[in-house]
Amino acid sequence: MARAEIDQGLADRLVRELGPRGAVFDAKEMQAYEASARHGAGQARAVVRPADLAQLAWVVRELVAGGAHVVAQGAATGLVGAATPTPDGTQWVLSTQRLRDVLHIDPVNRSATVAAGFRLSDLNREAQAHGLCFPIDLGADPTIGGMVATNTGGARLIRYGGVRENLLGLQAVLAHPAGQVVGTDRHLRKNNTGLDWTQLLCGSFGAFGIVGRATLKLHPVQRQSATALVAVDSADTAVALACALEQDMGEFVSAFEGMSCGALQAVERHQGQGLFAETPPYAVLMEVSSAVAPGQGLDLERMLMAWLEGRLEQGGILDAIVDKPAQLWRIRHAVSESVQALGRLVAFDVAVARSAFAPFRDEAQALIERHLPGARLCDFGHLGDGGVHLNMTVPEATSAAQIDTLREALYEAVVVRFSGSFSAEHGVGPYNQRFYDRYTEAPLRSVCSALQQALDPGLQLGNVRLGGAVPA
Amino acid sequence: MARAEIDQGLADRLVRELGPRGAVFDAKEMQAYEASARHGAGQARAVVRPADLAQLAWVVRELVAGGAHVVAQGAATGLVGAATPTPDGTQWVLSTQRLRDVLHIDPVNRSATVAAGFRLSDLNREAQAHGLCFPIDLGADPTIGGMVATNTGGARLIRYGGVRENLLGLQAVLAHPAGQVVGTDRHLRKNNTGLDWTQLLCGSFGAFGIVGRATLKLHPVQRQSATALVAVDSADTAVALACALEQDMGEFVSAFEGMSCGALQAVERHQGQGLFAETPPYAVLMEVSSAVAPGQGLDLERMLMAWLEGRLEQGGILDAIVDKPAQLWRIRHAVSESVQALGRLVAFDVAVARSAFAPFRDEAQALIERHLPGARLCDFGHLGDGGVHLNMTVPEATSAAQIDTLREALYEAVVVRFSGSFSAEHGVGPYNQRFYDRYTEAPLRSVCSALQQALDPGLQLGNVRLGGAVPA
Repeated sequence: MARAEIDQGLADRLVRELGPRGAVFDAKEMQAYEASARHGAGQARAVVRPADLAQLAWVVRELVAGGAHVVAQGAATGLVGAATPTPDGTQWVLSTQRLRDVLHIDPVNRSATVAAGFRLSDLNREAQAHGLCFPIDLGADPTIGGMVATNTGGARLIRYGGVRENLLGLQAVLAHPAGQVVGTDRHLRKNNTGLDWTQLLCGSFGAFGIVGRATLKLHPVQRQSATALVAVDSADTAVALACALEQDMGEFVSAFEGMSCGALQAVERHQGQGLFAETPPYAVLMEVSSAVAPGQGLDLERMLMAWLEGRLEQGGILDAIVDKPAQLWRIRHAVSESVQALGRLVAFDVAVARSAFAPFRDEAQALIERHLPGARLCDFGHLGDGGVHLNMTVPEATSAAQIDTLREALYEAVVVRFSGSFSAEHGVGPYNQRFYDRYTEAPLRSVCSALQQALDPGLQLGNVRLGGAVPA
Repeated sequence: MARAEIDQGLADRLVRELGPRGAVFDAKEMQAYEASARHGAGQARAVVRPADLAQLAWVVRELVAGGAHVVAQGAATGLVGAATPTPDGTQWVLSTQRLRDVLHIDPVNRSATVAAGFRLSDLNREAQAHGLCFPIDLGADPTIGGMVATNTGGARLIRYGGVRENLLGLQAVLAHPAGQVVGTDRHLRKNNTGLDWTQLLCGSFGAFGIVGRATLKLHPVQRQSATALVAVDSADTAVALACALEQDMGEFVSAFEGMSCGALQAVERHQGQGLFAETPPYAVLMEVSSAVAPGQGLDLERMLMAWLEGRLEQGGILDAIVDKPAQLWRIRHAVSESVQALGRLVAFDVAVARSAFAPFRDEAQALIERHLPGARLCDFGHLGDGGVHLNMTVPEATSAAQIDTLREALYEAVVVRFSGSFSAEHGVGPYNQRFYDRYTEAPLRSVCSALQQALDPGLQLGNVRLGGAVPA
């Protein structure tokens, strides 16, 4: 579809206010802002790149008042299309890449105030100098604004929680009143004075306002850790190990990741060597870690070894590799690309309560066999918090309709029969909007519609509709 | 003020549906539901006591449809009057004391689903049997419903967060549609599918809906701890110690409480004996704890002793008592009643960023000297997370107007000059509604008005107005 022409007066004003780097109209230059990390590409009407909070407010006011549709975009690492413009060329992309006006660490308060455009790695580099970190651990390196808007989780949520649990405050710009700056950079851990913008905007995928700055809790850096890759006889044993590890090593547990036989075989093939003498039915990567420096009366490596030895008696453990953490995490992080290297990838990101994990996995396997007989399940994920990445390779000739049939069956199983989530981490975007509409209870959509009406009555922000269509 | 008569038909219906224990009309019997924990008493029109979620829904539908005003009340331990009926006798009290239909622990998922009327101690007794606990630590023993509605914090927030960070889901009953049950008992740690009722209702003080059930994260019980009461030369040193303890003992830190000279002297007088050779300018109670059982390679008592010895060289520490945790916590918990025993009590519950704690305290001291010359500041609180209970004794003859003048000056200082909170833990109730109205930014009140309009357009639930009056 052809882009609509930009009014020359508006284009001039944008360049005057934001500078020549602040507005992009060239089709080729815009391509970098049109690609989605997983689901094709859209088409931007134009791209604006404010460099500070005042410019962000100005450009939102200008565009919204002019009737534009605006999609905020950080590092564009999301997997559900929430930061990609639609294909019809009507949406403006508001990139936060230059929005890097504040990165302030308060080491005494153990907090940071960060402009939306900084990357997670930028924040951690600065925090590290104070012995601190922001412990959300992800495969990607998103912007802070994107992390807040999409409430990212990751591999260490089991210990630290996700973004929502670590968000002390935020500043955002609204569509209504157009360009209104709201929120605060107060960095309070205790402030029980009603709702605030963190509850309304974090995890709203850009539907209610554009995040300009966030104030985040920091945590002491980890100074020692011990990691083991443990082969087990079943997913049931894996869940039992998670419970036992938490009971015995409590606050040290910082990751508990699951890898299925299919996922392990994919890694083995990709790396050209076996991990265990025989590929087990299931394996877990367990990590314990501490801020306590080595030599101060705590030796986690020894503690984990002793714990594993003690567990051997109870059966179910087939083998264990205790190695440098970096080596074992490399295996875990290799799963995604290894599965992809096997053939055509289809991926679902779901979650159930840990107590439902093993039966749900059996059910998922059965559904895949029924609906996509040639598919090979290579699931893995954050077992400790019930997250499952149901990744699989499917025959090249698989049709979109076949995949859709499987998706419908899987989501119905996870949401309705197993009281789980159809999007554990990836969030809501155009790609899965219809499942949000289907599985979100009507009174909640109705309240979100009221919020939408209050905050963005013209539906000008984002490409996600949390209000959705509410049944009468 | 005289109570309005209850329509006999309605009274009969209530008794028929809820049973004879489910409805209270007797003035004397109602007194137990009219008292406020700190600020006098109100007058109930009547009291209803549903015993399960279906009864809760039915009674809300019945009352709201009949135009009644309904105030939910748990254990009535709140300190800002949010669960006390107004003095005019128009409000129905909906007591959750009998609402105890579900208390289900899922040990594999480390979570619990609990009906609103169970007490914190009930939950912890059940969880304990599974080696688990709900680690919100408070002076009172509130109901779970009250804790969720008021987002309680407490002494161990520094490690575990407050209720909001530990709330996986809730079920509630709305005023609009009247009696509508919303929410879920799904117990998911990862579910990134938009806003949910936890964000809208937790910490809304009953304004938007009545909590019927909550699903909560549980944590492994602590199997060892070490506690020290450390006398220091200043509040500055106390803050520096908090930072150092977190850096060196990281995830073990489970409480870091501050006590001023005035608070310590009050305890000493109350107990009839000194704590230290000389009462210090300030003292901190530090607790480190672990789920790791003694004898498994971790000895926190030895670790804390070694740490304290190491800190002695850096100056500022005057003395330290390392004792059985229970003894030292008894001192901390004795502060409130000890201050009260000294004379007439005036108390404020504020918070600032930890980096602003010492200067704010100086400013508060100066304001008290200026506005209430005879007052004696005995502040204490959750220093580790910036919470300060500015409790003081004042001359008996102090007028309400004088206290008001001080309150105005203190809140202005904490909110405007120190970017703090005028209600760190206690929440918003009729008692401090006007400060909420004053210090909450207009766009946020406007959004809360929209929520109010969507969820309770007749303003029939609660006695707090988060929408407030929005300036044009």
